[in-house]
Amino acid sequence: MADLTPNSSFSLTIRIQLPNRSGMLATVTQAIAQVGGNLGQIDLIHQTHKVTTREITIDATSTEHAEQIVQAVKELNHIKVIDVYDRTFNLHRGGKISIENKLPLKTQADLAMAYTPGVGRICNAIADEPQDVYSLTIKSNTVAIVTDGSAVLGLGNLGAEAALPVMEGKAMLFKEFAGIDAFPICLANQDTDTIIETVKNIAPVFGGINLEDISAPRCFDIEAKLRQVLDIPVFHDDQHGTAIVSLAALINSLKLVKKSLEEVRIVINGAGAAGIAIARLLRQAGAKMIWMCDSKGILSTKRTDLTSQKQEFAVESSGTLAGAMVGADVFLGVSVPGVLTPEMVHSMARDPIVMAMANPIPEIQPELVLDDVAVMATGRSDYPNQINNVLAFPGVFRGALDCRASVITSTMYLEAAKAIASLMSTTDLDAEHIIPSVFDQRVVTAVSAAVQQAARNEGVARR
Amino acid sequence: MADLTPNSSFSLTIRIQLPNRSGMLATVTQAIAQVGGNLGQIDLIHQTHKVTTREITIDATSTEHAEQIVQAVKELNHIKVIDVYDRTFNLHRGGKISIENKLPLKTQADLAMAYTPGVGRICNAIADEPQDVYSLTIKSNTVAIVTDGSAVLGLGNLGAEAALPVMEGKAMLFKEFAGIDAFPICLANQDTDTIIETVKNIAPVFGGINLEDISAPRCFDIEAKLRQVLDIPVFHDDQHGTAIVSLAALINSLKLVKKSLEEVRIVINGAGAAGIAIARLLRQAGAKMIWMCDSKGILSTKRTDLTSQKQEFAVESSGTLAGAMVGADVFLGVSVPGVLTPEMVHSMARDPIVMAMANPIPEIQPELVLDDVAVMATGRSDYPNQINNVLAFPGVFRGALDCRASVITSTMYLEAAKAIASLMSTTDLDAEHIIPSVFDQRVVTAVSAAVQQAARNEGVARR
Repeated sequence: MADLTPNSSFSLTIRIQLPNRSGMLATVTQAIAQVGGNLGQIDLIHQTHKVTTREITIDATSTEHAEQIVQAVKELNHIKVIDVYDRTFNLHRGGKISIENKLPLKTQADLAMAYTPGVGRICNAIADEPQDVYSLTIKSNTVAIVTDGSAVLGLGNLGAEAALPVMEGKAMLFKEFAGIDAFPICLANQDTDTIIETVKNIAPVFGGINLEDISAPRCFDIEAKLRQVLDIPVFHDDQHGTAIVSLAALINSLKLVKKSLEEVRIVINGAGAAGIAIARLLRQAGAKMIWMCDSKGILSTKRTDLTSQKQEFAVESSGTLAGAMVGADVFLGVSVPGVLTPEMVHSMARDPIVMAMANPIPEIQPELVLDDVAVMATGRSDYPNQINNVLAFPGVFRGALDCRASVITSTMYLEAAKAIASLMSTTDLDAEHIIPSVFDQRVVTAVSAAVQQAARNEGVARR
Repeated sequence: MADLTPNSSFSLTIRIQLPNRSGMLATVTQAIAQVGGNLGQIDLIHQTHKVTTREITIDATSTEHAEQIVQAVKELNHIKVIDVYDRTFNLHRGGKISIENKLPLKTQADLAMAYTPGVGRICNAIADEPQDVYSLTIKSNTVAIVTDGSAVLGLGNLGAEAALPVMEGKAMLFKEFAGIDAFPICLANQDTDTIIETVKNIAPVFGGINLEDISAPRCFDIEAKLRQVLDIPVFHDDQHGTAIVSLAALINSLKLVKKSLEEVRIVINGAGAAGIAIARLLRQAGAKMIWMCDSKGILSTKRTDLTSQKQEFAVESSGTLAGAMVGADVFLGVSVPGVLTPEMVHSMARDPIVMAMANPIPEIQPELVLDDVAVMATGRSDYPNQINNVLAFPGVFRGALDCRASVITSTMYLEAAKAIASLMSTTDLDAEHIIPSVFDQRVVTAVSAAVQQAARNEGVARR
């Protein structure tokens, strides 16, 4: 694997003691730089006539690299490493979200209004008029983030407990980007019917359900069935969030190379939840030529091993990914690191668009083909054009909750994608800026508005 | 029904416009007082040469009473009622709890540490060492408040949605009194096995389960089965919270009348979840003579209609509640308003102890027998000696979470009750002060310490 840029996911802080004389700190920073560590903040903690104590924060590329950096400092003469903190681990300790009270609870009057006996009147009001649960409880702004831990990030089937840090992080994103209260539900069961039944049972508290990190093909059944049995929006972010942002990025990339979605041939590598959802949304947006590949090559009508979802996209052609890439206009990867070679990229049509979105390591290292492509996008924040679901799901749920949509439809996905793409004006749009930054505050508003408009047009908005 | 004291659960605010001359406000306050409204804050909103606008907050005894008060003001000459707010309803709008981020999420570095790719390292750590879920996620401080809405307060089977305002209020109490993050889980299913299965499935996120407002006898099976299948504490507050605080109050009441738990005859009226749990805990604490009554009278060995829980307390005697009360030392009511008559109280042994805990309206209005009893307690905050579960459950869970107890045992209930009782020193203890105030900050610490000590003694503490 080619070297990755150091980044904050492997950030460590080293506390060191060094003689208080000139040149000593330079020795340390030089040693860190020599092994490829990326220096951040350097704090002076304490200083005496003889000794200085400092804390140095360093980004590394991996756990091994972090250890190598610490080792390099430890080997220096006269320098004493007092402590090493893993900043990422420290940040996760005790969890990342909390439940807070919106009101004080300091007096008997507070208790009598918020709890018994006052709360009894609120209960009776909802029992009399069930829709009042939306105005008198947390329901209208609360989303369940549901996982069974079967497909945690790109890491695989780690189970419910190990999935929880991701779901907490997701809850943080919901809050930060859309003001939505989201709570993690990690299920100790991976049976499709049990998951459906469990989510159905816990639904009363929630205004929406965000499915997360549930492996294909079970995720398709779970989502479809829950959409049938629940009257609140259900959204599988790994599918639709990825599809929405991918389409937004593709719409703008095609503007740059002056091709239309109808005329390009698109290769999608990876036929899991994300790949299938991208293909479906691209088709709805007008794409005519989509060749999907899984680990066995092109999804061909000649193959007998295809699930029903894969059969939707089976084509006459057959062969390997390399074969599919010859003459293709667009590569969309939602698969595994390193499967796309420079040779494959060189075999593409003029002005190739490559979106290598495997996480955390893309299908191809961007550096290898930067001069050969018209547009390069990845899932990473340390390269331009990050295809990040956070551009989609906060606004999608904000819109769905605000208009009290009973369901989230594929038209809403399409309109959300167009809304994201439209935020890049012709002056802003270039090969390294095909979509807005995740910190662009216009995004959630634009997506929410588009989703609400679509909901009203389709008659699924309930207010 | 005798009149109740006005209280904040029926609190309203009236905005009025009145001529700016002396005596006008007095007319309004007098009118309110005449119909029994309890005046609170009076705000001056706006004043011109001619007209004054004020907001007056008033406690009433019921919705009808609140309407009567508004009507009385409306009927005054020269006074214009501009608006009437129901403070309790206003306070519940949009729900009473929120999910908040413990960390900022403002930069790419924040995202890379809290979410992908950094979070992947945390997931792998937990997958490798499952117990790390306690240190690296919210689990160690998070409790599920689980209900099926089958026995909401004293209001009955209102269902999941109508139960949510209570569960949110409960979550507020957990936070305010013990710093615990509690989240409401309201189940759209009232089948015993389904509830057990659902709670088991969602357990990974939680460090403890608080069952709430689930009707008897299903609550007994649900709690017993969940204790078997889960390795986290399960506590049914309606049972054990009530039992702990009742026992604490009884311990101190008996000190005042100089009787021992072993020698008194106790009548418990109400053989639901709370009644059975109180009886079990009193027996464990040493009580020898407990007569329980349900709506059909004394739980007698002659009766053939008793559930297995009721059979535990069946006695040779039979008859009505009135019969049971003759010569009894203690009455504990967890039943319905007004079933205890002054005559029954007069038939008790010397220095009767009456704990009439039906909510919101007690088994007997305290005013009717105040001169005839040694101790009177209710569930209400507007009388002395409020038997309030908030004295127990925050500390019980704080202790159980902090020592990572695998289970909450009846020994812990007993020790918690003793800890609460012990906070009333001989100088503080009198007939109107048998237990600490819910705002006494020593309570949670004392209960938590007692629970942890018991957990260690019993070998169920895991750290």
